Amino acid sequence: MISSELDIPQAVLGGNRLALARLITQIENGTPEGYDALRRLFSHTGKAHLVGITGAPGTGKSSLVNQLAHFYRNPTPGMTPARVGIVAVDPSSPFSGGAILGDRVRMRDLAGDPGVFIRSMASRGSLGGLAAATSGVVQALDAAGFDVILIETVGAGQAEVEIARLAHTTLVVEAPGLGDDIQAIKAGILEIADILVINKADRPGVENTERALRNMLQLAHPLRRDFLSPADAVHHTDLVHKAIPSPGDEPNIWSPPVLRTVATEGIGIQELHSSIQNHRKHLSESGEWQRREQSRMETELSMIVQERLMRRWRDGLPAGRYQSVLEAVYMRQISPWQAADRLITGDEP
Amino acid sequence: MISSELDIPQAVLGGNRLALARLITQIENGTPEGYDALRRLFSHTGKAHLVGITGAPGTGKSSLVNQLAHFYRNPTPGMTPARVGIVAVDPSSPFSGGAILGDRVRMRDLAGDPGVFIRSMASRGSLGGLAAATSGVVQALDAAGFDVILIETVGAGQAEVEIARLAHTTLVVEAPGLGDDIQAIKAGILEIADILVINKADRPGVENTERALRNMLQLAHPLRRDFLSPADAVHHTDLVHKAIPSPGDEPNIWSPPVLRTVATEGIGIQELHSSIQNHRKHLSESGEWQRREQSRMETELSMIVQERLMRRWRDGLPAGRYQSVLEAVYMRQISPWQAADRLITGDEP
Repeated sequence: MISSELDIPQAVLGGNRLALARLITQIENGTPEGYDALRRLFSHTGKAHLVGITGAPGTGKSSLVNQLAHFYRNPTPGMTPARVGIVAVDPSSPFSGGAILGDRVRMRDLAGDPGVFIRSMASRGSLGGLAAATSGVVQALDAAGFDVILIETVGAGQAEVEIARLAHTTLVVEAPGLGDDIQAIKAGILEIADILVINKADRPGVENTERALRNMLQLAHPLRRDFLSPADAVHHTDLVHKAIPSPGDEPNIWSPPVLRTVATEGIGIQELHSSIQNHRKHLSESGEWQRREQSRMETELSMIVQERLMRRWRDGLPAGRYQSVLEAVYMRQISPWQAADRLITGDEP
Repeated sequence: MISSELDIPQAVLGGNRLALARLITQIENGTPEGYDALRRLFSHTGKAHLVGITGAPGTGKSSLVNQLAHFYRNPTPGMTPARVGIVAVDPSSPFSGGAILGDRVRMRDLAGDPGVFIRSMASRGSLGGLAAATSGVVQALDAAGFDVILIETVGAGQAEVEIARLAHTTLVVEAPGLGDDIQAIKAGILEIADILVINKADRPGVENTERALRNMLQLAHPLRRDFLSPADAVHHTDLVHKAIPSPGDEPNIWSPPVLRTVATEGIGIQELHSSIQNHRKHLSESGEWQRREQSRMETELSMIVQERLMRRWRDGLPAGRYQSVLEAVYMRQISPWQAADRLITGDEP
């Protein structure tokens, strides 16, 4: 039990897991207490390495995340174990409670380790709400001293792109045997990948998958303008047929490596971990770490402003006003645009 | 050429396709002219049947949409051909220009038919922007007198759910041979399905797919509270083991049918068309048509208000103010929440 007088931010900074769990629930529910706590914790954030993991269902992302967490906890001799937070987000399940089951399966592996904290989140309402809540939960874990936060999302749509924007390092997970047109649609998601992982690499077709990914990378890479200096940002068709520079050629350009893993057997996990560490080093040395942090903070500020403006507007409407304007729209007497004008400026309908 | 003095809304109502194309571009670009035109056209909307088609890549949605459009244009003798608008939305491609290619492929089939209008849309910025633009484009087609508007989206995530909310009738397309865990994740999307289509039904495994869908429907259906009267809205576990009522048992309950098609050969298209017409009839008779229209208008109003409030707020900020508050966040001197307070209330940082 946590007494209701407990100072939650203080307790979170002191390593109290129950306080952290309660704070995360407050953030998910969007309560004022949650936001107050995040406000007080903000100056303690900015230390954790945020690693996003995304990919289609069936690629074995959850096993990969579990194995990575294990490796961070039990690294090769001489390395310090990192404290690991895991946030599993399922934007494609606005209705079902599948995230909970995920938690239980993970718990069997990682339960009881005080250096690991796991939380699953399913979409409750709008996508914007989920992205904001995920960002808040990640900040809570960051303030609580977790060194690495693994943010797992399912799928390859706009939702995952939004959530990937939170991360410093984004892993895109594939598996052999996906159809050609599934590959084709991934062109967009490839462009946010810092590291490509072919999991289930003991399956037939792994060479085809790797070749397809490398071909697509070659097309996608020149569009990643955030990694190019302004002078390099020429029209991308000029670059399509050039080889991607290998890491080390140019300190400010990162070439996403393509790695093979078999997560269920622990194969390739050490190499993946090294690659993540390399990317972290690249981010710091190129100044990209700071740019991503700033871009993340700006996105977050924008989401908060949006939510505040909407709430303030709703609270400021006279009782019944919204409904009466809406009725006029229902009757097609006025358009939604005119209704918005009236509801914002306060003119009588 | 359209002269710049042309009254676009007038021309759209008069059936001018170039004016319609120009209006749609204005809506996509979010120009004031586009919104002015939609305002004037709004009282002419509300007649079209909006049919959403969603499903994973590789299920053959585009072929199905083309075949449906053909059938609406060339129905069985005695039926009046309908004018068909097609809006293909790809929320998973924020970067690539794939939508354009889609247009060209379709054009080969349906080009030159003045009763068909096709437009592809790719996500340009935020998801909210895409949903708003799609809604505007659909209204333009509705006002232009298209009787049926097929809204095709790729995928099964939150983005598709948002866009499906525009539709009166939502088709979810599956295909045999998708993996078990792909099926599992679709539980959410099934709950928005009015009609389930197993396309490519000549492929092996069609029986398994149909069985899996029927099983999932039985789980998903009781959660569709919008189709239940308040008295029926008991806890869903009470209903899980009951059979789904067959159509006709209860006029206010729609049981999503599961249909098989082979779109490339035109097989099952007539039955699918009948099923869509049945659903339309059900919507009218149960009052659900009106409820969906109203819910759609309310969502749209809310999106417009949100966008207006953000724009008005940005325009009202003194020059340099946003940047200076943002810098304080970058330095972690203030949290994004405090920054939002300052930017909204105007207090000095």
